[in-house]
Amino acid sequence: MMQARPPAVERLAVIGCGLMGGSFALALRQAGSVGGIVGHSRSPASACRALELGVIDEVAPDAADAAAGADLILLSVPVGSTGAVLAAMRESMRPDALCMDVGSTKADVVAAAASALGPRIDRFVGAHPIAGKERAGVEHADAALYQGCRVILTPTPQTDPARVARADALWRGLGARVSTLGPAEHDAALAAVSHLPHLLAFAAFRAVAAQDDAQTLLSLAGPGFRDFTRIAAGDPALWRDVLIANRTQVLDQARRFRAELQSMEAAMVAGDADAIEALIAPAAAGRSRWRLGG
Amino acid sequence: MMQARPPAVERLAVIGCGLMGGSFALALRQAGSVGGIVGHSRSPASACRALELGVIDEVAPDAADAAAGADLILLSVPVGSTGAVLAAMRESMRPDALCMDVGSTKADVVAAAASALGPRIDRFVGAHPIAGKERAGVEHADAALYQGCRVILTPTPQTDPARVARADALWRGLGARVSTLGPAEHDAALAAVSHLPHLLAFAAFRAVAAQDDAQTLLSLAGPGFRDFTRIAAGDPALWRDVLIANRTQVLDQARRFRAELQSMEAAMVAGDADAIEALIAPAAAGRSRWRLGG
Repeated sequence: MMQARPPAVERLAVIGCGLMGGSFALALRQAGSVGGIVGHSRSPASACRALELGVIDEVAPDAADAAAGADLILLSVPVGSTGAVLAAMRESMRPDALCMDVGSTKADVVAAAASALGPRIDRFVGAHPIAGKERAGVEHADAALYQGCRVILTPTPQTDPARVARADALWRGLGARVSTLGPAEHDAALAAVSHLPHLLAFAAFRAVAAQDDAQTLLSLAGPGFRDFTRIAAGDPALWRDVLIANRTQVLDQARRFRAELQSMEAAMVAGDADAIEALIAPAAAGRSRWRLGG
Repeated sequence: MMQARPPAVERLAVIGCGLMGGSFALALRQAGSVGGIVGHSRSPASACRALELGVIDEVAPDAADAAAGADLILLSVPVGSTGAVLAAMRESMRPDALCMDVGSTKADVVAAAASALGPRIDRFVGAHPIAGKERAGVEHADAALYQGCRVILTPTPQTDPARVARADALWRGLGARVSTLGPAEHDAALAAVSHLPHLLAFAAFRAVAAQDDAQTLLSLAGPGFRDFTRIAAGDPALWRDVLIANRTQVLDQARRFRAELQSMEAAMVAGDADAIEALIAPAAAGRSRWRLGG
């Protein structure tokens, strides 16, 4: 399938110059679809690093200043900061601006946006690119991060349909596969396949690291442990916000997980090899069939 | 550091022609260190596939026949089959043969070997290469699988020291980093960094797959889920045996994990963002610092 070039952007404002925002800027620039890129980060060092790396063209002193003059605003901050950042930008936003986020939860983000933007909520399109790398930070930004990646848009009845179409064309132009979900449906699904796995990986790494011989244990860990715990290296502020914002759904998923774990532990306690195999076999077959983007 | 060529092997017998055994055969052949390779698998189709792929030179009808004439025997079968396979080979083994396994548990394997081989237990060196790939089977065998991989040898006072030295030189010659542990110490450590992660990945995949909208959920899963659940694609018979053989240690590790999970869930229930971040941050920092083979 031919990948259409992303629609032209005069001026992109990236709020939060990390892996996600930086990769978006690089990809849009590589596509030749952006005039200029301004960035702002809560930590000035991050924005300066993005400038040094050529990811952005200018550093703005605050979010309001970054938003002024931008026809596309990409918010890449911990989800709990969405409301405050949008409120700060409300007055300086261009009337024709499209504002998107990249947060991992959507019900809280969409509600915070509605509250912060008031009647201007039509300008905001919730977006979640399901992408990631082991290393965060703008140093690891990658123009190819969104190639083949799934992006979920979560428009509401208040969202301007023309802006949804523009958001869709932008992400597709960067090689993403775009789909649309309601904010609540998004959060329920992502609790199962992303948020709970992060919670489990954090807990599993903690459990190893807390042991007296942790250094020996970690030196014996192999590629299975590496992959299983990769997501435990995620940004603490980002995941703090996700686990709090979506806690009802994540706790529900944790309950389902614990029931499965309990069944497996019970079979082990009983020394019942057949029962263990009967529990493992469908998971192994299912996971062997599963493909990313399949 | 120069990698010495592995010591010469006249005839290698591979019992269990899968990913691990097949990769060992390919690596030894690529090093130019083996005269001939005979293989046997419980499923004749696997051995035939290994023959077609040029991984082995001959298919033996049973383990005893495969062992006859081999100066190196590599056992790559589910750990619960170790005793039966070694007993079948006992009478046909060459007096100067070195027999190694590649199993993920060692206390049960060493005990089964002692019982099956009797006074010939001096010929057996327990070995565990901590390697793996998403796909099992001889089709995925890879001459480079053991390059940089850690291999743990678990000799006992009954093991012939000359054979331990030969095992050490063989694995080092294939590029592995070799260390030695007692069988019980091995099992305690691997419960933490390998067996429990497998148990958790199986349970996590089961929990998603059991939901009514599992297909939708799995279609929304991204690279984090892919890596977190990779090990859930492991061979069910192999992991059945590991989880049963090492269940005391794995259940102890599961208890430690559940305590960590419970702390995190309690902070979420309380909506305590600071507590969540305080729990995540050390895990994220620790996992960011950790390197495979570091």
